[in-house]
Amino acid sequence: MKSGEINIRVRYAETDQMGVVYYANYFVWFEAGRTEYFRQLGMPYNEFERNDIFLPVTRAFAHFKVPARYDEMVRVVTDVTSIQEVRIAFKYEIFRENELLVRGETEHAFVSKNGKPVVLKKQNPFLWRRLLEAAGENVE
Amino acid sequence: MKSGEINIRVRYAETDQMGVVYYANYFVWFEAGRTEYFRQLGMPYNEFERNDIFLPVTRAFAHFKVPARYDEMVRVVTDVTSIQEVRIAFKYEIFRENELLVRGETEHAFVSKNGKPVVLKKQNPFLWRRLLEAAGENVE
Amino acid sequence: MKSGEINIRVRYAETDQMGVVYYANYFVWFEAGRTEYFRQLGMPYNEFERNDIFLPVTRAFAHFKVPARYDEMVRVVTDVTSIQEVRIAFKYEIFRENELLVRGETEHAFVSKNGKPVVLKKQNPFLWRRLLEAAGENVE
Amino acid sequence: MKSGEINIRVRYAETDQMGVVYYANYFVWFEAGRTEYFRQLGMPYNEFERNDIFLPVTRAFAHFKVPARYDEMVRVVTDVTSIQEVRIAFKYEIFRENELLVRGETEHAFVSKNGKPVVLKKQNPFLWRRLLEAAGENVE
Repeated sequence: MKSGEINIRVRYAETDQMGVVYYANYFVWFEAGRTEYFRQLGMPYNEFERNDIFLPVTRAFAHFKVPARYDEMVRVVTDVTSIQEVRIAFKYEIFRENELLVRGETEHAFVSKNGKPVVLKKQNPFLWRRLLEAAGENVE
Repeated sequence: MKSGEINIRVRYAETDQMGVVYYANYFVWFEAGRTEYFRQLGMPYNEFERNDIFLPVTRAFAHFKVPARYDEMVRVVTDVTSIQEVRIAFKYEIFRENELLVRGETEHAFVSKNGKPVVLKKQNPFLWRRLLEAAGENVE
Repeated sequence: MKSGEINIRVRYAETDQMGVVYYANYFVWFEAGRTEYFRQLGMPYNEFERNDIFLPVTRAFAHFKVPARYDEMVRVVTDVTSIQEVRIAFKYEIFRENELLVRGETEHAFVSKNGKPVVLKKQNPFLWRRLLEAAGENVE
Repeated sequence: MKSGEINIRVRYAETDQMGVVYYANYFVWFEAGRTEYFRQLGMPYNEFERNDIFLPVTRAFAHFKVPARYDEMVRVVTDVTSIQEVRIAFKYEIFRENELLVRGETEHAFVSKNGKPVVLKKQNPFLWRRLLEAAGENVE
């Protein structure tokens, strides 16, 4: 499947006294990109939680190249990079027009509401197959 | 009972490009003040939720007089101003040393997890009496 | 002029453990509404700051009627309610489809970068007239 | 020098609908740890900015092992891991009592207000020497 894409207008709240976007907010935008990726895949993240599957972040990384500023429109491009029995990984690129500002990665565990690891293939074969199809050749 | 008090060190994340604390963050500090008030009262807010009593904010107000800045230490002073069968209200004052920066108020409903109003006096007479004692003459 | 309008998708980051949007975040959405209002007026807020006019919030109020939830799309409708020589006021309504979730108000001072009050009519007659025209009969 | 240490009380605002702290907030706590580290070193970060030296984050990483929850007290332990002519790196460990919840790293560039790289050794030999002494044998 192709990348998930979402446009985000930078909020004043997201800037800091350096006059640019505060670094932790890019991770929030990654999440917005992820949410949109799942929606465009036809399986909104809410469906996971309704099926008692949660995807807490276990690792996150970002490389900040160029800062975004208040009122700019940025574009978050999201892809799945790996699907395993108990985890999934994404990568993100944030652009302002054609300029790459930030790239990043997150890794997520599949867990139930109480935090126990879930084997997605067993717990929900439908979601599992749907994810595999979506991620195509990127799957490990 | 006397006021709840808590000291808060201003984070870089809380500033915006104007070089001062972004206005919505003072409401977060109000919440930190409220949490501390309940703890100092001997009934941590967590206990409410464990008893299926939630206190969502129904109204909030703030008057911003002087801005706080990065790395300053501010003090949030919290008091209950009103307790009714289905709601409670607080006021807050935020100081930097002896200078009043912000004052505000919040009103909260007593509700259950599913959002239905709860009559605290019936649902949990212990918490109800404890709150009444705490608020003293301020109770309506 | 007609109201400013903007659609906002609720982020996971904006929820709290009550399962709904944390109250301070509605004030961030007010700001997004305000930014959009100025843009639709043809005078982006950035222009104010480039002309050394800043609009810090001096008072804010919100009435929270119905909570918004993760991944919902809400609509922020913004209007100017008052323009005076040294301040301006806005009101906001946040809807989910046709249901009113939150309404609120903010008041802002006109100040220079160093925080000194600015008489907008003198400092920038163009912006002043433009605002007056925009606000129409609402002006006091 | 020994590690910087700071205690942080988890705010309700920092939780999400999973009932735990939202991942991006740990990066805010890293910043609070960093601020404290500089203060304990005797050179508050504010001094850098007053000398036109800014430390924007260029890379950030975190490994989330165990989630923190509302009202818990956590401890952020911060160390410098590397100092180079134009950048500096930190590592962080976040504990709840003796349990390691999160560990992470950030890398920062030395830049001037306008974003241009700064050679700290030339721009401010005092801060440079102070940092080198502080980081001791960790310096590359």
